[in-house]
This record gives sequence, C-alpha cells and structure tokens, in this order.
Amino acid sequence: MIKVVKIGGNVLNDETALKQFCQDFAALEGPKVLVHGGGALASDMQEKLGQKPVKIQGRRVTDEDTLRIVTMVYAGWCNKQLVSLLQKNGCNAIGLSGCDGNVITACKRPPLEIEGVSVDFGFVGDVTPESVNRPLLEALLAQGLVPVLSPINHDGEGLLLNTNADTVAASVAAALTAELWTCFEKDGVLRDVNDPSSVIPHITSADYTELKASGVIADGMVPKLENAFRALRQGATRVLILNAAAITQGTGTAVTL
Amino acid sequence: MIKVVKIGGNVLNDETALKQFCQDFAALEGPKVLVHGGGALASDMQEKLGQKPVKIQGRRVTDEDTLRIVTMVYAGWCNKQLVSLLQKNGCNAIGLSGCDGNVITACKRPPLEIEGVSVDFGFVGDVTPESVNRPLLEALLAQGLVPVLSPINHDGEGLLLNTNADTVAASVAAALTAELWTCFEKDGVLRDVNDPSSVIPHITSADYTELKASGVIADGMVPKLENAFRALRQGATRVLILNAAAITQGTGTAVTL
Repeated sequence: MIKVVKIGGNVLNDETALKQFCQDFAALEGPKVLVHGGGALASDMQEKLGQKPVKIQGRRVTDEDTLRIVTMVYAGWCNKQLVSLLQKNGCNAIGLSGCDGNVITACKRPPLEIEGVSVDFGFVGDVTPESVNRPLLEALLAQGLVPVLSPINHDGEGLLLNTNADTVAASVAAALTAELWTCFEKDGVLRDVNDPSSVIPHITSADYTELKASGVIADGMVPKLENAFRALRQGATRVLILNAAAITQGTGTAVTL
Repeated sequence: MIKVVKIGGNVLNDETALKQFCQDFAALEGPKVLVHGGGALASDMQEKLGQKPVKIQGRRVTDEDTLRIVTMVYAGWCNKQLVSLLQKNGCNAIGLSGCDGNVITACKRPPLEIEGVSVDFGFVGDVTPESVNRPLLEALLAQGLVPVLSPINHDGEGLLLNTNADTVAASVAAALTAELWTCFEKDGVLRDVNDPSSVIPHITSADYTELKASGVIADGMVPKLENAFRALRQGATRVLILNAAAITQGTGTAVTL
C-alpha cells in the first residue's frame, strides 16, 4: 500500500524537527510520496522583500510577485532542502512540482463571491484526483524513487499556480488509491484540546457528524477532517492524522468513511 | 545522438527570448537535456534582499544566505518557469537539481590560493562526468522525458552546493557521450568581435592554439573554449557554440579535438 505523507510549516520551519522527520520518513517502509507546504517561510520571504502577505479565509492571494516568491520558496528552497536531507538518509527522493513530467495540472481558480464581494485569488489553482499523473508517479515508484511534491502546479499552458498542499496530498492519495498520512503538531484529533493524551483513535463519518455537533471537533480540525473525508470518498483507502514525530510508529487518529 | 543544451542569463532574463527559446527547444528532434544558469536573476534577488553579491574571478562566493537565494532562484523560479513553458510547447520536461534522484553529486570546493590569498567560496561545488548519474538520465530519456537541470547540486550528505552551469553541461555531455550545445548571445566564435557575421565555422584544438596566440580568441571566449575542449577530452562527441536563437538551425562554431 502506497503512503502519501503530508507535512506542513511546523516541520519545515524548525531545523531540528526537519532533520528528524527526514530520518524517520526515510525509514518508513514501502512505496511512499511526500507532499509539503511551506507557508510560513513564504510569508517571511514576502516580508523581507517588502510585500505584505494577503490571506482571505486562510488562502494566500497570489499576484505575480507573490507567485515568484512562493515558487522560489516551495519549489526551490523547501523542496530541495527536503530532498537533499532524504538523500543523506538513503531515501532516493526526487523533488517535483506539477510541471515536472506534467505530474499535476491545476485549474486557475475563477474569482469567488465571498461575503458579497468578488475575490480574485490571482495565480491560485485547484487540483483534483483527475489532474494527477498516476502513470508517471507509479513509474517513478517502480524505479525505487520517492516523489517529493511541492504545492506549485501548472495549467499546461505555461502558467505556474499556487495550490493548497492539503488538497494536493488528498488528490494524490485518491489518485493512487493510497493511504493519506496528514502530519501536524498534535498527536491526533483530541477529545479535549487541553489534554494532549486524549487522542481519538478512530473516527468514522458518523462519529464526525456527532463530534462536530457536540463541539468536540471545531476550528482548524474541521477543514482537516473535511479534507480527509473528501480524500476517502475520492479513492484514498484510509487517512491517518498524526504527529510528524510519530510517523515511524504510525499512531494517531485513523479516519474512515 | 543526445544533445545537451546549455543556456545562460541572456535567455533567462528576457521574457520574449525565453518564450522563443522554449518553443525552439521543444521543436528540437531527438533525445535532449537542458542545463541552465540564472546568475543575473540571483544577483538581482540578493540586492533586493539587501545583500551584496561577491564574485572572485567570476565565481560567486556563496555563504548560507546566498545558497538559499541561488537555490530559490535557480532550482525554483528559473527551473520551474522553463519547465512549464516547455510543457506548454508539448515538450515533456522534468526539472531536476542534483539531489533529485541523486542525478548529480558535487564536491564542496576546498579553499583556493588566489594571488597569495586563501579564498573560501563557501557552499560551492565542483562537478565531473563521474558525478553524473547516467543510468537515471538514460531511464528518464527512455520514458520520453526531457531533463532540465539547474546548477544546484548536492554532496549526498545533506548539503546543497552552487555549481557552475557550464561545467555541469560539459560533465553531463561527457557522461552521456553526447553533443554539447553551448548557447550565448553571439552567432558563434567570431574572427572579428566587431563583425557579427565573421563566425568561424569549425575550430580544432590545433586551430585554438593558433587563434589564441594571435589574439583572435581572447577574454570571455577563452574559458568557453577551454570548457569545450575539456568536455571533448572527457567524452562529449562534439561541441557547438551558438546563438540561443539558432538552435533549430544548429548553426554556429563546431569545436572538435
């Protein structure tokens, strides 16, 4: 079974965590794909270059300058740093953005109506399982290579597009009929946000409806679980929500339909 | 016969030239590899970030901040922009830095004695034909993919290294027993620098010795030709020095031993 592991900013922004993660990910057995974000580093770079990051509902508005910065940070620095550290640990990683071998195409997002206002996110794209080049990923995996995917994708017409790394990971897991392992800074979905040991070991969609209604699952966990259920409905076999530091144990919250 | 085409800053810094080049390169028949630099864009980015580019004998001194910038610019922006434009033109390009699939390893350059002073270039690496992963490049070419190589390579121990794109191109051409096409802003090696039509169609090593002694070949053409002869001695079959705008014609100065 292929594992698609998604990591975010909390690993990429912390050199010690990053090195440990690369060692652990390299040790993970079986075919695997890594998908990364890098949001906080992009915001830092925007600020260093005198730009003010603009986000609407958590999504970065991406004008031409911002596109250049996120491409530099995600496809350049984050991706190559991850790949070189994985290589150091004996994992034959290959870093790819969507344009590389046409591995993922994206559709430029049309302006959206948000609270009565038309919002143009700019060079932002949306990705689906159908836009993932499954034969290429399978051919690379068959060669013993480990794809490391940045969230920079392309439209096939020469345009690079900034996409959401969680959606990329979900789409890749669905396209490959794989497990999706979504890493974050906690040990799983917690029954009590103030008790790190209160991990819920297994959530089904029926559980989710209940836990959301009772307020146990709220805030940032809602989009994480929505993304998990979307991946499952689209073809992923199982979703694990876990701490990046726990990938060798594979412990966390398992999500199934 | 595989062609290894090297382009430099004059193509990458000019949007019109870049688009035309990608169209022309896509139309080039047979297996091919593209190697790019991107020096001027890196210097621009260094200045925007308040750094002063330091070069000694034309080579960039690469401290930790500079390494991050060149990785962002070369492996990120330049590489992905090229690949997405090639994809637009129907060329199934795949952008790689040295760490990707361990395609090129580099040795960190030890401090050099220059004019009696020890100079540490920092995170700068040297590449040879032996450090090129020929089986991987051949496997990718056999799958119909077109490798697009950035000059960011790695040491296999987790370190990214800034390398010289001309040396990368020469080493790849030698490793693949390929033709090396070195593009620049002129139509070839000129007999008279003030006469753009005075292209010398063919130069052998014996001609070179003569032309250098008589001063016809001087300044920036010397390292270009030295690099060409090194590639030939190491295994490249033929070197063509030509205008990036002439790759579909394949006209320029042919260099042989």
